[in-house]
Amino acid sequence: MKSLKIGVCGVGNVGGAVLDNITNAPDIVRDNGGVNIEVSQVGARKGKSVVPFDLDVTTNLMDIAANSDIDVLVELIGGCDLAKDLVEESIRKGKNVVTANKALISTHGDELFQLAKDHGVQIGFEASVAGGTPVIKALREGLVANKVNWFAGILNGTTNYILSKMSDDNSSFEDALKEAQDLGLAESDPTMDVDGTDAAQKASILSALAFNTPFDFRSVSYEGIESVSSDDILYAEELGYSIKHIAYGSIEGDEVHVSAYPTFVSNDQLLSQVGQQMNALEISCDGIGSTVYYGPGAGPKPTASAVIADLVDIANGGWPETGSAGKKNKLLKEGKQEFSRYYNLEVKNEAGAIAKVSALFAASDISIEALIQKESKQTNQEQSHVPVIIITGPLSDLNALQMLENLGSVEEITNSVKQFRIHNAL
Amino acid sequence: MKSLKIGVCGVGNVGGAVLDNITNAPDIVRDNGGVNIEVSQVGARKGKSVVPFDLDVTTNLMDIAANSDIDVLVELIGGCDLAKDLVEESIRKGKNVVTANKALISTHGDELFQLAKDHGVQIGFEASVAGGTPVIKALREGLVANKVNWFAGILNGTTNYILSKMSDDNSSFEDALKEAQDLGLAESDPTMDVDGTDAAQKASILSALAFNTPFDFRSVSYEGIESVSSDDILYAEELGYSIKHIAYGSIEGDEVHVSAYPTFVSNDQLLSQVGQQMNALEISCDGIGSTVYYGPGAGPKPTASAVIADLVDIANGGWPETGSAGKKNKLLKEGKQEFSRYYNLEVKNEAGAIAKVSALFAASDISIEALIQKESKQTNQEQSHVPVIIITGPLSDLNALQMLENLGSVEEITNSVKQFRIHNAL
Repeated sequence: MKSLKIGVCGVGNVGGAVLDNITNAPDIVRDNGGVNIEVSQVGARKGKSVVPFDLDVTTNLMDIAANSDIDVLVELIGGCDLAKDLVEESIRKGKNVVTANKALISTHGDELFQLAKDHGVQIGFEASVAGGTPVIKALREGLVANKVNWFAGILNGTTNYILSKMSDDNSSFEDALKEAQDLGLAESDPTMDVDGTDAAQKASILSALAFNTPFDFRSVSYEGIESVSSDDILYAEELGYSIKHIAYGSIEGDEVHVSAYPTFVSNDQLLSQVGQQMNALEISCDGIGSTVYYGPGAGPKPTASAVIADLVDIANGGWPETGSAGKKNKLLKEGKQEFSRYYNLEVKNEAGAIAKVSALFAASDISIEALIQKESKQTNQEQSHVPVIIITGPLSDLNALQMLENLGSVEEITNSVKQFRIHNAL
Repeated sequence: MKSLKIGVCGVGNVGGAVLDNITNAPDIVRDNGGVNIEVSQVGARKGKSVVPFDLDVTTNLMDIAANSDIDVLVELIGGCDLAKDLVEESIRKGKNVVTANKALISTHGDELFQLAKDHGVQIGFEASVAGGTPVIKALREGLVANKVNWFAGILNGTTNYILSKMSDDNSSFEDALKEAQDLGLAESDPTMDVDGTDAAQKASILSALAFNTPFDFRSVSYEGIESVSSDDILYAEELGYSIKHIAYGSIEGDEVHVSAYPTFVSNDQLLSQVGQQMNALEISCDGIGSTVYYGPGAGPKPTASAVIADLVDIANGGWPETGSAGKKNKLLKEGKQEFSRYYNLEVKNEAGAIAKVSALFAASDISIEALIQKESKQTNQEQSHVPVIIITGPLSDLNALQMLENLGSVEEITNSVKQFRIHNAL
């Protein structure tokens, strides 16, 4: 049987689950994967007290890089500072690396993979996207024979939980977030989840695999879900949609665009049915069409499952070096992706106001597919303005921004206009 | 770059798609998979006229096994006769094998894998289940760190198309089947699809991987979809279910049961949303819970995609030998799996009839979760009997069979009672 000696750095929830799995259920990996994994050393800055296993623990994480007994560094400390130094030094010492660190891969992936290539070692990062659902494996192995045209993914469990909760229970954003925090599904500082950063990092990793772009998180355009209101959720339901935070990547020629925004997803799409804190990724390829991968996107056990799958792959020879060297496609930030759009406006309740708004869309050559004037909710007051929902035909992000600006200058519109994408693809 | 020389036997739709992909888009596999695949020889019983590529063609398929230039036999002729001889002879000659042949693997898998082990070669069979969706890869690689508790799958595209059509358009079974045939989604002889054999074969392959059982299709219990009527579809919708043909495998201790039956699937389950001819597989593991894989389950391009993914894997070293040798779990045919059930009865429209039926369920210790007496459809005639729908709590297949027999002896029941499983798992 093959064997692998690993050094695990970072003993939080995920690190604990990795150590627990390897220590307490080694027969599963032996039987299923034909590999005997042994933990040679654990790096934990807080020392042995946080490692509830009888293992060699060091508080100096760089000891793991220096330990010549170790075949693979398992990096679970996160961030781009110490983690980067540790990964680089481990690679230089001839170690393979398995990491769940999406920030590191999406920011420094290119240099790290070059370094790994120079030293003849492998980097596994299945755990960095979609937790226990093997989407990286599907992209680079299962779908290896296909050209990917686009992907659409629900990649952040916290925001999906919040949006699902707002929809299922008519909760406010604040209440849903609070509940996610109480359940341990959101950090005490949930900024990176809620503002879309986490999903954008993951989307940039998918882009590198699907479209052979650089790992470059900064070229992803994104927004979070803070702007989604209970009203938007209700209007979406009325119109046959669910609101999801969708990371979308697409390629035209050698130009790739990746973005992550709150998006209306038609209820006949599988992605619209993904509730709770679950993740899902739809990958559309030439010839075979769409495949969808659904599962838990975070959490100690799912993430540990992905880490161990990478370890088994490395024991069995790792992954081929792929991508036409040096011939990467371009990851561009300009908003060229075309989507139908939802607009939520408040319009003065006076003659001619709606006609003026409609005319503005027509003047910009944007087709209106549906326009719904709602009754004002202020039934006990003067009905000074009424909500108007408009669904348009496809327009690019750039044109959508321009349209928002145009609408902003219409004096009959009394709110700060909201616009969301609509994902209709079959 | 790694390279692989293959011999392709069988040039139907799938074989044509494999040759087309390798011949016309070799750069995709080179860039994505780091492998140069070369077709050394094609075996086509009808000869060069059916091979629209400039390739060496032989009408004697055993020539492929004998050709020492070939690294991998791609077996796409199907069935268990010539295909078996060809695969065995190729293995004996030191060739790896990639096959889409579910009948062969599900019937002779154990002896073929033993033969392959003896000769140090690999057998890839990703294409035998779920076409272009990499479910075999997910099971034996992506989920390698987990104990599978159960799987539930829509594994036959033809029956899913028929059931979806019956539901979407209120078509009869016959009309939906006819349409599937017109669209090329069903064979002119659709028996193997419609009677559940195809799904059962695929389920037995999944069982071997998920539960370390022998490949033994004959130990799967199954029925087809012929018994599903338009009325059942309507009742299901009323009750919040879709009817799907579900292959279900589960393990208790070292006992495994695998079965494939028409099944009510609750509309809050992702599997209930799988329409058209699509396939989907839900795999539930300890710790990480459910992951779901969705995609095209058949067709030339999806199947070719899976065949080529296997070829790339073989070029990169293949798969580890796994499973505790000789220590297989048992695949048992007794119906021990427990499900809630749907019963469709016609009961004489007379006092006390329903009470008698209810009492029979109570006497067998089966809880009735819902009972709906429908109005008779025969509004212009004497209403001699009325439809009665009963939803029960969980009972085993054995007990369900016994209950059917008991109901058959109730003189107030005028139809041949129908019973379907209900899949509610979250």
